[in-house]
Amino acid sequence: MNMKVCAMMSKEAPMREVEGTAKAISDMKVRGAANIARAASGALSTFASAWKGKDRDAFVSDLKKAALKLHSARPTAVSLRNGIELTLSGAESGATVEDVRTIVVRNSKRFIASSEEALRRIAEIGKGRIPPGATVMTHCNSMAALSVIHAAFLDGKVSRVFATESRPWRQGHLTVKWLAERGVPVSLIVDPAVRHFMKAIDVVIVGADTVAANGAVINKIGTSQIALCAKESRVPFVVCAETFKFSKETLLGALVEIEERGPEEVADPLRPSDLPGVEFRNPVFDATPPEYIDAIVTEVGVVSPYSAAEVIKEMFSVPGPVLTDGDRSRSSWI
Amino acid sequence: MNMKVCAMMSKEAPMREVEGTAKAISDMKVRGAANIARAASGALSTFASAWKGKDRDAFVSDLKKAALKLHSARPTAVSLRNGIELTLSGAESGATVEDVRTIVVRNSKRFIASSEEALRRIAEIGKGRIPPGATVMTHCNSMAALSVIHAAFLDGKVSRVFATESRPWRQGHLTVKWLAERGVPVSLIVDPAVRHFMKAIDVVIVGADTVAANGAVINKIGTSQIALCAKESRVPFVVCAETFKFSKETLLGALVEIEERGPEEVADPLRPSDLPGVEFRNPVFDATPPEYIDAIVTEVGVVSPYSAAEVIKEMFSVPGPVLTDGDRSRSSWI
Amino acid sequence: MNMKVCAMMSKEAPMREVEGTAKAISDMKVRGAANIARAASGALSTFASAWKGKDRDAFVSDLKKAALKLHSARPTAVSLRNGIELTLSGAESGATVEDVRTIVVRNSKRFIASSEEALRRIAEIGKGRIPPGATVMTHCNSMAALSVIHAAFLDGKVSRVFATESRPWRQGHLTVKWLAERGVPVSLIVDPAVRHFMKAIDVVIVGADTVAANGAVINKIGTSQIALCAKESRVPFVVCAETFKFSKETLLGALVEIEERGPEEVADPLRPSDLPGVEFRNPVFDATPPEYIDAIVTEVGVVSPYSAAEVIKEMFSVPGPVLTDGDRSRSSWI
Amino acid sequence: MNMKVCAMMSKEAPMREVEGTAKAISDMKVRGAANIARAASGALSTFASAWKGKDRDAFVSDLKKAALKLHSARPTAVSLRNGIELTLSGAESGATVEDVRTIVVRNSKRFIASSEEALRRIAEIGKGRIPPGATVMTHCNSMAALSVIHAAFLDGKVSRVFATESRPWRQGHLTVKWLAERGVPVSLIVDPAVRHFMKAIDVVIVGADTVAANGAVINKIGTSQIALCAKESRVPFVVCAETFKFSKETLLGALVEIEERGPEEVADPLRPSDLPGVEFRNPVFDATPPEYIDAIVTEVGVVSPYSAAEVIKEMFSVPGPVLTDGDRSRSSWI
Amino acid sequence: MNMKVCAMMSKEAPMREVEGTAKAISDMKVRGAANIARAASGALSTFASAWKGKDRDAFVSDLKKAALKLHSARPTAVSLRNGIELTLSGAESGATVEDVRTIVVRNSKRFIASSEEALRRIAEIGKGRIPPGATVMTHCNSMAALSVIHAAFLDGKVSRVFATESRPWRQGHLTVKWLAERGVPVSLIVDPAVRHFMKAIDVVIVGADTVAANGAVINKIGTSQIALCAKESRVPFVVCAETFKFSKETLLGALVEIEERGPEEVADPLRPSDLPGVEFRNPVFDATPPEYIDAIVTEVGVVSPYSAAEVIKEMFSVPGPVLTDGDRSRSSWI
Amino acid sequence: MNMKVCAMMSKEAPMREVEGTAKAISDMKVRGAANIARAASGALSTFASAWKGKDRDAFVSDLKKAALKLHSARPTAVSLRNGIELTLSGAESGATVEDVRTIVVRNSKRFIASSEEALRRIAEIGKGRIPPGATVMTHCNSMAALSVIHAAFLDGKVSRVFATESRPWRQGHLTVKWLAERGVPVSLIVDPAVRHFMKAIDVVIVGADTVAANGAVINKIGTSQIALCAKESRVPFVVCAETFKFSKETLLGALVEIEERGPEEVADPLRPSDLPGVEFRNPVFDATPPEYIDAIVTEVGVVSPYSAAEVIKEMFSVPGPVLTDGDRSRSSWI
Repeated sequence: MNMKVCAMMSKEAPMREVEGTAKAISDMKVRGAANIARAASGALSTFASAWKGKDRDAFVSDLKKAALKLHSARPTAVSLRNGIELTLSGAESGATVEDVRTIVVRNSKRFIASSEEALRRIAEIGKGRIPPGATVMTHCNSMAALSVIHAAFLDGKVSRVFATESRPWRQGHLTVKWLAERGVPVSLIVDPAVRHFMKAIDVVIVGADTVAANGAVINKIGTSQIALCAKESRVPFVVCAETFKFSKETLLGALVEIEERGPEEVADPLRPSDLPGVEFRNPVFDATPPEYIDAIVTEVGVVSPYSAAEVIKEMFSVPGPVLTDGDRSRSSWI
Repeated sequence: MNMKVCAMMSKEAPMREVEGTAKAISDMKVRGAANIARAASGALSTFASAWKGKDRDAFVSDLKKAALKLHSARPTAVSLRNGIELTLSGAESGATVEDVRTIVVRNSKRFIASSEEALRRIAEIGKGRIPPGATVMTHCNSMAALSVIHAAFLDGKVSRVFATESRPWRQGHLTVKWLAERGVPVSLIVDPAVRHFMKAIDVVIVGADTVAANGAVINKIGTSQIALCAKESRVPFVVCAETFKFSKETLLGALVEIEERGPEEVADPLRPSDLPGVEFRNPVFDATPPEYIDAIVTEVGVVSPYSAAEVIKEMFSVPGPVLTDGDRSRSSWI
Repeated sequence: MNMKVCAMMSKEAPMREVEGTAKAISDMKVRGAANIARAASGALSTFASAWKGKDRDAFVSDLKKAALKLHSARPTAVSLRNGIELTLSGAESGATVEDVRTIVVRNSKRFIASSEEALRRIAEIGKGRIPPGATVMTHCNSMAALSVIHAAFLDGKVSRVFATESRPWRQGHLTVKWLAERGVPVSLIVDPAVRHFMKAIDVVIVGADTVAANGAVINKIGTSQIALCAKESRVPFVVCAETFKFSKETLLGALVEIEERGPEEVADPLRPSDLPGVEFRNPVFDATPPEYIDAIVTEVGVVSPYSAAEVIKEMFSVPGPVLTDGDRSRSSWI
Repeated sequence: MNMKVCAMMSKEAPMREVEGTAKAISDMKVRGAANIARAASGALSTFASAWKGKDRDAFVSDLKKAALKLHSARPTAVSLRNGIELTLSGAESGATVEDVRTIVVRNSKRFIASSEEALRRIAEIGKGRIPPGATVMTHCNSMAALSVIHAAFLDGKVSRVFATESRPWRQGHLTVKWLAERGVPVSLIVDPAVRHFMKAIDVVIVGADTVAANGAVINKIGTSQIALCAKESRVPFVVCAETFKFSKETLLGALVEIEERGPEEVADPLRPSDLPGVEFRNPVFDATPPEYIDAIVTEVGVVSPYSAAEVIKEMFSVPGPVLTDGDRSRSSWI
Repeated sequence: MNMKVCAMMSKEAPMREVEGTAKAISDMKVRGAANIARAASGALSTFASAWKGKDRDAFVSDLKKAALKLHSARPTAVSLRNGIELTLSGAESGATVEDVRTIVVRNSKRFIASSEEALRRIAEIGKGRIPPGATVMTHCNSMAALSVIHAAFLDGKVSRVFATESRPWRQGHLTVKWLAERGVPVSLIVDPAVRHFMKAIDVVIVGADTVAANGAVINKIGTSQIALCAKESRVPFVVCAETFKFSKETLLGALVEIEERGPEEVADPLRPSDLPGVEFRNPVFDATPPEYIDAIVTEVGVVSPYSAAEVIKEMFSVPGPVLTDGDRSRSSWI
Repeated sequence: MNMKVCAMMSKEAPMREVEGTAKAISDMKVRGAANIARAASGALSTFASAWKGKDRDAFVSDLKKAALKLHSARPTAVSLRNGIELTLSGAESGATVEDVRTIVVRNSKRFIASSEEALRRIAEIGKGRIPPGATVMTHCNSMAALSVIHAAFLDGKVSRVFATESRPWRQGHLTVKWLAERGVPVSLIVDPAVRHFMKAIDVVIVGADTVAANGAVINKIGTSQIALCAKESRVPFVVCAETFKFSKETLLGALVEIEERGPEEVADPLRPSDLPGVEFRNPVFDATPPEYIDAIVTEVGVVSPYSAAEVIKEMFSVPGPVLTDGDRSRSSWI
């Protein structure tokens, strides 16, 4: 949410600034899948602009080091990886330092601009999925989901939003504040009350951290049980996700690793030591299977979660089946 | 079903004829998703042929007016919109009146021919989905579905068809008549008897009014509860739909609006005034979720409903993700 | 609903009057599970009162003939069978004609009175299941269900009722009339529109023709698919049934036979001959499995459908397991 | 959990003491379905012992006042109502003050003793349902559930317990403390993490506030979505409930009312005023449908939730069907 | 199936004969839940008849030893335990050796006779559940199930039976032989083919080893996945079980232990040593949850599986809730 | 599994060798979807190399005869058909015998090499889907599935494999042998034990014979009920399939025909004549619906089964919708 971090970086000592951005990401000062991707892309651009020297190969090598540093700040974050990859995409084809720099800076500008444009288009597209007079449920604090809800509210279609507290971090507090400030009628509920209120809900709108190739959506812990409750009550469950949250790695077999954080957050407002002998488990995300998801709203349109592999293939070059080099015309031999 | 409407139109006073076609559509004299699309396409072609003048811009402007008039005859009908859009596709690139006319007339001829060809291909492809000796259920009066059933019957595979009455319009009467005239053993049942007979059914075959980007199928009211009953009994539920019934607008976020018609049809054979103080609700369509649909038979093959977004993208130009202009080669930076 | 039929019968020629009641039942002049049971019970009482003679055995034999005649008027109707059995219950223990007559007349008076009392208690008990401000759906024309809905309406809890047309007989017309006359806001919908409106429903209330020992409910054709739609949307589905609609025969293995009636009702408003070569199928009832039923409201309380066997055992003497004549005390030998 | 409250009451001014107990209950100083029932029963016994006078009718009238006062402390609590009813059961048959007093004091002693015995028997019976090496999940802070888990742990069968935080009151903190103090390996998780961990769970054990006649279980908010997640993963979901938590009123049509408490608990650790413009919704319980419950462990054995009506009938005298006074012997007349 | 084993036992050396029966049971020479129960009951009767002496206490003590010996032959077999308990039921109330002997001999005669009568009644009751022209599936080799199928076949209602091979013992071979010898058209399929054929099945009929208090049925390994497949295809799944297969222990919390046998049976027709390094797992039974079972046919009628606790309570004396000794009349105090 | 068959063929009398390969395929000496495809491709290459003559048209005609001969060896095998089609793809465009021969030989080399490469890539991609410490279930004897499992085992992620016997052919014996030889801990179970063990399984990995356009997977009989059991227990079910197992014919409407083989295999280890009067049914495959499949691992990545149509379109040229020849630009006319 806070992009000033990028601006803080001076023009000298480029790698130090990359490190600063990486630290801001790992310390959660820059948070949210889109924000960390943009911060990393910006850091690479700044790094490329500031890099001094003539040796094209050294430059590429340094760019890779910077990329790795940024990536290791949140190694399970798909948007971060994608933001870095898209920013460096094609850079290796540059023959000179200047070529490479031009590509990286232009890629970064485009990535940042297009990721912001994506948010606007998601709001525009997604608001169509909200029926008039809707009571909406949301979880955690997703700007993509909130943009959709707000756009629909401005169209006069939202009568109330139920927001979950979203333990352990209570991002629900940010959500209800943001909505209340914009005049949207909003109710805060604890996470265990989801199923109790589900019968009164017309549509659930959430964000996504990662979309996997088989259509599973990795998002804030608790998302999957909300989706299950929505399915049980025949309530549409809609995910809002920029295409850079789709994971190419899952197409190539990777399971999305679920980050697990420290005990303090679960114990809060107590401290872990207040409950001696107790283990605290703190997974940050969970996986919602595609059969509980009605639609994913992306900046390129509303798609079924089962189209995830196609979205990924369209975005990234992925090797296809190369079985023959015949023309595969329609002639049938049998 | 009745294409003569187009032929009725004289060669003079072109806009009046467009209006005639629009009225025939809104009065339900031309009915059925494919028929109204072809009628509108034909009306545009006739209009373009008859248009007098040299002013290319005026011509395009008039074409747009004609298109809007036709569209407003059934504004929720996706096939109508698609028929119009495909007929006018590329027309704006024409530099002269003659160029534009040529494009429109050629497009219309192609659209009408290809929509008829689509029906034949659907029959040919769809009959493969019917197992030998099958008892088939159908709903309403879809030529796509009936063509498939009849083709399978001619192959000796259909032992009996159960057709629903399809209240309020009783299109089931048309269906049983059409089938009985062709020698197909057919049984008429009331709509509430669907679940009772479902255990005896081998496959359900229905048409579609609209296919949405997330795979939901909008069709005659009652379709979705038949699909639910089929799922409960593990009976395959197959939808037959030409690709021009797939809705580009849903890809861009629109929900399909469900038309609601007047009380007379529900009260029939009484009149609304015979039941004073009673409200009559008359939605024309309902939405069947993709998880109840085994396959959609289109003229381009059998697809999962979850492929709807891909079918739409293949048919219409839809903006893709344009995040970078690098070559997105397989090089990985992380 | 119409008990005057019983009163029509003169005091002479007793068997003729029994035949009259039987005919009124088979001609559907006396309709509804409770009405036919009461009519048959009343006819037996009248018959017993009018019977002349001293021969106790001849009396009992004639009573059995009368019982069989009445039963054969609708042999698949459980309430009819139960009404007859409960009216004659214990009569064989009478030593004289007078004894037998006294038992039958008293049984009949009790059965009729208690069946009417049952309806009142069901209304009283059942209205508790309707939440404030409820939108209720009902099917066909069940007095038990309507009594519950009306009692809840008088308590200010019903905001609207959706009633299905209930093809082929359109009992929905009776239902909407009855409700509208009492000021209940009511909407009539065609049977295929059930699933479309289900999301707006808070509770479904229907009657029952028969409750089977494993909890399945046999009721007007269409009931089971409404129950399925209710389940799919997590809408409570409540059945209202007097205990005399529970079937002892199903406890002893019988499947409830589904009556199938003539083609005219399905063809209506056409005649069957208007659709030559078409078969018409007309099952009157269907079976709703217990897993789709939240509760059955009886005059003895709200029970799970899975308690049906216990209700039957409580009402009728049913043989239990007689494995030993030990005292089955808690002593354990192993 | 805390029975000292009863002991605090002096022997004079009996009604004042009843009021004290009522207040302790409404202020949540006495908490938990069993505790409040025992406290009320004890208060009635103390009241009866301390009551001075000779007028039997005045005594009965005062007892009723005391009963009402206690009941109104938590009017939706079924255990409280049952505890009071069972304590006063039969008291009206007492002819003198002494008779009435004797019955009440004896009933109370029995109720308290038997409710404690019930807990022990539930532990003994319920531990059988836990397989060796089990990972158990529990919710909130139910002594019935914890007794079962602890008994199984002492038998060496429990390898770990996952306890939910149970927002908004965080009774999970009490649960993990109680278990950790007894050496049971225990993990605390936030409520939204239930589905994520469910795959690793062997059995879920929870308590109940109320069991309804159709088998639904009313328990701490969040219970029903845990049950849903358990069902989804084929994990047995077991409820532990003394029979006095079964609700006779639901047999007679009542819906269990869900108490909704104030906003502070939901806002905590913030205050409601910290989030201006936000509504806070705080239902205390939710309803778990019987199809998600494998078994209810009561002191009289393991039963299906669908046996709830039978348990209620066995405990309380409930009117049965009285249709005839014949002997309902097996003679069949048809 | 083979009762001659009992007759083999000489009248001398009574305990030796008990041991012989126990060995025949553990060696599977006497097989089937009913057969082993009858064999044990007969052995106890023979033992009691043959026991020499006057000391009533010694006799009772020896009877207990005999009971334990028999029980330990298949300690997880509920029918065996129940047969023994019912045979010795009330014996301890005998004051003399002769009294005790009379009770045991009479109990045994009754148990054996009534268990045979139960089979006949199950056939009579159960055949009602088979619709005309039915294609039936069965599993393993249950005499209760086969009796039902055969009775229905004699009534002309069975068109074909699909029997599973029932690995590892291939009891399906016994089943198809028994049916083919009686002229029933029968098809043998391998166990993995169940789901493939399920769509063609009208009803599944199986036996039971044990019925648990919450309605779960323990039967031959493979039963539960057949039940799951039946549910998926809306095919009724009916269990046939004498009441002595219902387990009192499960009412008191016991989980039914699943016996696991040796590796030879799984390796067959190879030997385990032919597949070195391979573990062989051989559970004999599995548990079918009640939600997959439409009805249980017992000799006392058709019941829902959810009535299991009631059946158990009716058969065995089980402690009820004893909370007060008031008269629990309907007077309400609140 | 055995490729030596190809090598056996001499260089003379080319058609005779094609016949030899065809016979080896129909006699099951060459088994497995990939093996038969490679054998046929190799046979065509050999045939093309050995063919003598100058007449290009005669050569093409002979190639078609050879293709048909090979195809008719297992006409329902999709991989065989695809192997042949891909080998001959584009051959008709060859102008001379030499051209045609070059294309065929090169295609064959590529097909065989790429099909082997596909297996390696599937192992590499698929192992990612196996979580650390996993207990895996597999069915039949699929090299694609086993390669994945083995690759994961080498990464230290597999703790045990449960393999089904896979009646009637007992390919499970091959599977457990192959795994045990490589040190993988493996347990053999009979097919009916699948559901019993499913709760202990972390992921199911199977192969495929054919993947249909709507996502259904045709594989060894028993696969679909394993998938159903996995779904019931929320266990991921993963299919491993080279893209040449995807069926273009199903896109064009064909249902996959299920081969049914002779009675000996079902009767084994008895002979059919040992069970007189018994019919033996022996379907080789069954169809698993896509809703039970989490992901399909192909050599081009992990995809949802619902992407099958897209995979097919990418592999084979399939006609698309050709409705207009306008440029289908984004201009909207309405």
